[in-house]
Amino acid sequence: MKSNAPATHAGRHFLQIPGPTNVPDRVLQAIAAPTIDHRGPDFAELGKEVVAGMKRVFQTDETVIVYPSSGTGAWEAALSNTLSPGDRVLMFETGHFATLWRAMAGRLGLEVDFVPGDWRHGVDPALFMVDTISSLASIDYRHDEWRVDVTVAGSQKGLMLPPGLGFNAVSKKALAAAETAKLPRSYWDWQAMRETGHTGFFPYTPATNLLFGLRVALHMLLEEEGLPAVFRRHARHAEATRRAVAAWGLEVLCADPREHSNSLTAVLVPAGYDADRLREIILDGFDMSLGTGLGRLKGKIFRIGHLGWFNDLMLCGTLSGVEMGLHRAGVPHRSGGVAAALEYLGSP
Amino acid sequence: MKSNAPATHAGRHFLQIPGPTNVPDRVLQAIAAPTIDHRGPDFAELGKEVVAGMKRVFQTDETVIVYPSSGTGAWEAALSNTLSPGDRVLMFETGHFATLWRAMAGRLGLEVDFVPGDWRHGVDPALFMVDTISSLASIDYRHDEWRVDVTVAGSQKGLMLPPGLGFNAVSKKALAAAETAKLPRSYWDWQAMRETGHTGFFPYTPATNLLFGLRVALHMLLEEEGLPAVFRRHARHAEATRRAVAAWGLEVLCADPREHSNSLTAVLVPAGYDADRLREIILDGFDMSLGTGLGRLKGKIFRIGHLGWFNDLMLCGTLSGVEMGLHRAGVPHRSGGVAAALEYLGSP
Repeated sequence: MKSNAPATHAGRHFLQIPGPTNVPDRVLQAIAAPTIDHRGPDFAELGKEVVAGMKRVFQTDETVIVYPSSGTGAWEAALSNTLSPGDRVLMFETGHFATLWRAMAGRLGLEVDFVPGDWRHGVDPALFMVDTISSLASIDYRHDEWRVDVTVAGSQKGLMLPPGLGFNAVSKKALAAAETAKLPRSYWDWQAMRETGHTGFFPYTPATNLLFGLRVALHMLLEEEGLPAVFRRHARHAEATRRAVAAWGLEVLCADPREHSNSLTAVLVPAGYDADRLREIILDGFDMSLGTGLGRLKGKIFRIGHLGWFNDLMLCGTLSGVEMGLHRAGVPHRSGGVAAALEYLGSP
Repeated sequence: MKSNAPATHAGRHFLQIPGPTNVPDRVLQAIAAPTIDHRGPDFAELGKEVVAGMKRVFQTDETVIVYPSSGTGAWEAALSNTLSPGDRVLMFETGHFATLWRAMAGRLGLEVDFVPGDWRHGVDPALFMVDTISSLASIDYRHDEWRVDVTVAGSQKGLMLPPGLGFNAVSKKALAAAETAKLPRSYWDWQAMRETGHTGFFPYTPATNLLFGLRVALHMLLEEEGLPAVFRRHARHAEATRRAVAAWGLEVLCADPREHSNSLTAVLVPAGYDADRLREIILDGFDMSLGTGLGRLKGKIFRIGHLGWFNDLMLCGTLSGVEMGLHRAGVPHRSGGVAAALEYLGSP
């Protein structure tokens, strides 16, 4: 095997976890610009511009809040701004991160009615609060039209940025709830943050350099490619990936085709095989990172991220790495997954 | 006046607010590196390395926590991890940010005994929690030796990074307090965060690219210049600045020379003159940002930041901009401030 080992660290690493995603070179360069005065006139323009752009991404005319935080912080902001200790919330067990959000609600003193699930189905999206961390700017999402009260998002997925920015899109109903909500809050408090769209300024020091990057990423998404094309691109790569998985004779975790994700594909490995060992072989042999199975799915699945700054040939490389990895790891499968993807992607 | 106007946007902007500070080009370049898998082996090394480096900066062998947040978040972490609703805390009114921290404590449900002050004096540093946001890595600070329980810090000052990382250094006593503290917390909870020093990993997505920058900044501070030299450099620039202020016939806000800051100098403008108008004239005429007076000091002072990635000639440019600005704005002063600084800095 050694004789055929490639020079694994020449060329660019394949970061095919479901986020953080590949960041465009232009966005990285923007982030590397010298930091500016966050109370000066240039910053005001930046602040207003990125909030206006994020409204278009959320498809909302309502309030948008930008935090220097991870997406987890944006979760906490959604809860702490709208609820009081002892309040009951209804949450649905759709997967690992749903269980994490539930645990957070418990720590904050909320009563959770948790509707159990098998992690293989979504829920009826008539929800008040929606976590779009792994879908925003990858899959069509309409905060206003779908009457969502709080949408939670992060920078490191479809927005093509490094992690470090958290977002809330907030309806008038949620703003009204914040007037009486009694969970203690300060950092996450919307009251002081909601003026940014008008003034461009933040009540405390923002993550300036990530906002430089956000400006460029928003331009790419909204002005250059356009959101409809971004969504079509993600749908195309997801379909190609699922065709590859089917051709390998493997199973996608998500059981209902109507609920398939366009941003990542979780693949079940056959019983008796370790998905994390497979991931290790692929990282060592082909310099590609794939997502691990989280929580109760650990070792049972691997996740292919195909969202963010991504194209057909990057996907071909990604699927090639998976197929060669399955072979090296001795995981039972049929070859032909890459061929199936090429047939789909290459058809005129 | 117009005929003598310089091309204000050629050359590098002078970012002489008391933070965010000038970021070294090397740190900016590091931040622009492609994002990596925050659950992969390379990240583990990064996480362990930056926590170990931050322990040296805090001069502590105790726990260090790194948040994707502003320094304000690190404040909230200090309070929410150690206190319960209704607990009484003693806080000292040393300035604007002390009043902000007090307001946060109130919002979190704490009872605050606030010792009033005139914003011109420090306090006896026998405190349990210390905010070092504008001093860490600029002025000697010893978390362990001074028996501090929680030290709060941010990335955008002496650490020479853009904003977006918050830090807590935590004593064993504070960790013990966290066992029984009842303020609701999740994002800020130390329990899940404290393992990073051992594992290199974080419980939720970290601000990866800022950690790339932190690695480089720590190397510059600890291995290249060395903390003692960093502290001497800051002391030297502060002394030169105060000599300039004295030569202008103006007054430094801080009333007790033992409490003078080595990271910034706040200068009172004579009664009847507007410090913010002066700052505007300097920004327009000489492309330099100075810090505004906050809260009740608005319009009465301006603040010269001389911390972070900074040297003698940058300081000379800074003081020259202030002196020319005082002249243009018609603020009564004697010339000779720059000359006084040159005499001090240039003596062999």
